[in-house]
Amino acid sequence: MALIVQKYGGTSMGSPERIKNVARRIAKWKGEGNQLVVVVSAMSGETNRLIDLAKAIQTSPDPRELDVVISTGEQVSIGLLAMALKELGIPAKSYTGGQVSILTDSTHTKARILDIDDQAIKADLDAGQVIIVAGFQGVDAQGAITTLGRGGSDTTAVALAAALQASECQIYTDVDGVYTTDPRIVPEARRLDSITFEEMLEMASLGSKVLQIRSVEFAGKYKVKLRVLSSLEYLNKQGPGTLITFEENQNMEEPIISGIAFNRDEAKLTVLGVPDRPGIAYQILGPIAEANIDVDMIIQNVGHDGSTDFSFTVNRGEYAKALAILETVKAHVGARAITGDNKICKVSAVGVGMRSHPGVASKMFRALAEEGINLQMISTSEIKISVVLDEKYLELAVRVLHQSFNLNQAA
Amino acid sequence: MALIVQKYGGTSMGSPERIKNVARRIAKWKGEGNQLVVVVSAMSGETNRLIDLAKAIQTSPDPRELDVVISTGEQVSIGLLAMALKELGIPAKSYTGGQVSILTDSTHTKARILDIDDQAIKADLDAGQVIIVAGFQGVDAQGAITTLGRGGSDTTAVALAAALQASECQIYTDVDGVYTTDPRIVPEARRLDSITFEEMLEMASLGSKVLQIRSVEFAGKYKVKLRVLSSLEYLNKQGPGTLITFEENQNMEEPIISGIAFNRDEAKLTVLGVPDRPGIAYQILGPIAEANIDVDMIIQNVGHDGSTDFSFTVNRGEYAKALAILETVKAHVGARAITGDNKICKVSAVGVGMRSHPGVASKMFRALAEEGINLQMISTSEIKISVVLDEKYLELAVRVLHQSFNLNQAA
Repeated sequence: MALIVQKYGGTSMGSPERIKNVARRIAKWKGEGNQLVVVVSAMSGETNRLIDLAKAIQTSPDPRELDVVISTGEQVSIGLLAMALKELGIPAKSYTGGQVSILTDSTHTKARILDIDDQAIKADLDAGQVIIVAGFQGVDAQGAITTLGRGGSDTTAVALAAALQASECQIYTDVDGVYTTDPRIVPEARRLDSITFEEMLEMASLGSKVLQIRSVEFAGKYKVKLRVLSSLEYLNKQGPGTLITFEENQNMEEPIISGIAFNRDEAKLTVLGVPDRPGIAYQILGPIAEANIDVDMIIQNVGHDGSTDFSFTVNRGEYAKALAILETVKAHVGARAITGDNKICKVSAVGVGMRSHPGVASKMFRALAEEGINLQMISTSEIKISVVLDEKYLELAVRVLHQSFNLNQAA
Repeated sequence: MALIVQKYGGTSMGSPERIKNVARRIAKWKGEGNQLVVVVSAMSGETNRLIDLAKAIQTSPDPRELDVVISTGEQVSIGLLAMALKELGIPAKSYTGGQVSILTDSTHTKARILDIDDQAIKADLDAGQVIIVAGFQGVDAQGAITTLGRGGSDTTAVALAAALQASECQIYTDVDGVYTTDPRIVPEARRLDSITFEEMLEMASLGSKVLQIRSVEFAGKYKVKLRVLSSLEYLNKQGPGTLITFEENQNMEEPIISGIAFNRDEAKLTVLGVPDRPGIAYQILGPIAEANIDVDMIIQNVGHDGSTDFSFTVNRGEYAKALAILETVKAHVGARAITGDNKICKVSAVGVGMRSHPGVASKMFRALAEEGINLQMISTSEIKISVVLDEKYLELAVRVLHQSFNLNQAA
């Protein structure tokens, strides 16, 4: 008898009819002899409705009270799903984050899980109950309701799987797994049977938004077997999804590259001719960080003539704000000029195989060069090569790379 | 410095704008140096929306899970009101029923309060906070969320007032107090400055639906000073409302009758010619109770020739159901026939003064007789005389009695 933690997101829980479908899916797993702990999100749209209500009262809602309000979305979901299971004759019991209890720190609206008390859940599981837990929420040491931030339900699921030492944590989404790239751009994209934890981290942060990145980190830390599955498939046609693994495949046939990720939502900024001396990077990025602007790629090449150029990318929506900040620090850092471009994109090849296979970068650059695509920025990590391109080349670049690395579906 | 418990209902909390108005009202009381504990209901319509969601999943929703779902309505309200107070610069903190904690039995959807742990609230009050508590909800000994049934927020407020030994429990509604009768029927109806607890009980159960009857009983039991006020009046024109008292006024000028209550929503049923023997009442009303039909007046007159007639009134919506049940028990109890009428109404004169003033009943009957109104049923208690009339006489009867007992406003 396996203990499985499942997580269903807001789309899967979006209406009474969909909630009934989720209950049928749970019933199937339960019928196969598994113990089940199910984490659910708020019905789609509900969290935004509650945030709008709060903002109609306070432009910047008090974080403690905002958590009191928005945590109700998941609470409604757990009650409804427990009812749907009982309607199918399956014993079920709901738990709020506070009832579990999922102890967090007191950082309202983005709390971190500190501990989970799994005693009550274990007793109920042993009594044959399906346990339904509200995702996204916890309770701090003072008993105040906290929330984990957007996508926090994935984290709740992984944390519960870790605490309960579950066989597997299944994240149900509207896709049937992780793909080699976006099938809307490359129709030949393939579902991956498995992907390593590190690849998944790189894919997630690069815009393949299947899983919340924090939950993947959590799964890695506690070695939770994580699987992405579709909640939209017919019950009798459920595919295996994609398993996130923590050991690298020792198989010689292992592909070098697992997937091509991309992100259109970027803009690049360059500070030209800054003095090549210690502290410059901090002087430039300090004010950006203080303005709460997330920085993605950061590139600084070797200097010549005592000066260098410093480039970085930000979310496109923060381009104007970042540019304005750079103008204010320009004189202070002694830069020659500030330039920027918000019509760029980032394309990345990701794969643990590149660790043991030299020449991946050059193969990637050649493929792009053959299509006449100019590379504006290049950045590499151990298992990822990212390039910044003119936005108009995005689809072409993704298709060319997907083909070059033999990711296309076997004909 | 007085400690005041206030309760605001769903209409007062019906929109962000109204919630801000409630906050301003609280701010005024706080500014006058009072400590405040505020109990709120769900925004109007919200509880019904949640019940509809639950019923879309389960025709008869599981009571435990229904409580999980519907208790979120008040949770949203407390967060929003706390935000609105903070927006006014007033320190405020919300509490769910579980956080207080309001310990109840485990009778989901109609739980009874057993105990209140007021330690946290007292500490926060001493720290200058306004405390916002979710009405209608509690938590049982196992930590499950419970609700107190419709109107339960009034009960929460009274229970908190009792536990905290508050100076006063103020129930804010959309009327500015308890009236001698419905001003829509008798324009001369007067707001009562005070009314006794027992009169209020009789007025409430008779259809003057200002306060939930259970909260009035609770207030009586714990001697909580209860006041009904309007949340719709301008802040600078707030009237004194109506105080519910627990001592009878010793003043010689005390009116004999405090008000004329009425209820149009009734139907009467009569079982004719039942044997005059022990157990008959139970044989008739047992099946009615089992069908969850509430019975109001019950009248059985002395028998003659070994048989008697047995009459009772029910909510008009349950008339057909009750009639059908009586037809099935008719043979069993040996009744001659079943009759009924769903075009009746009940009119009652209520007043503790009638205890010490004989002749109230005859005065009431004479006033009605002078208008040619036939009395179909008569029932009396220590402080109330109720008559059942043809529905068409309702307004006339109420006006005549209001005038006869000198309840009209001083010209």
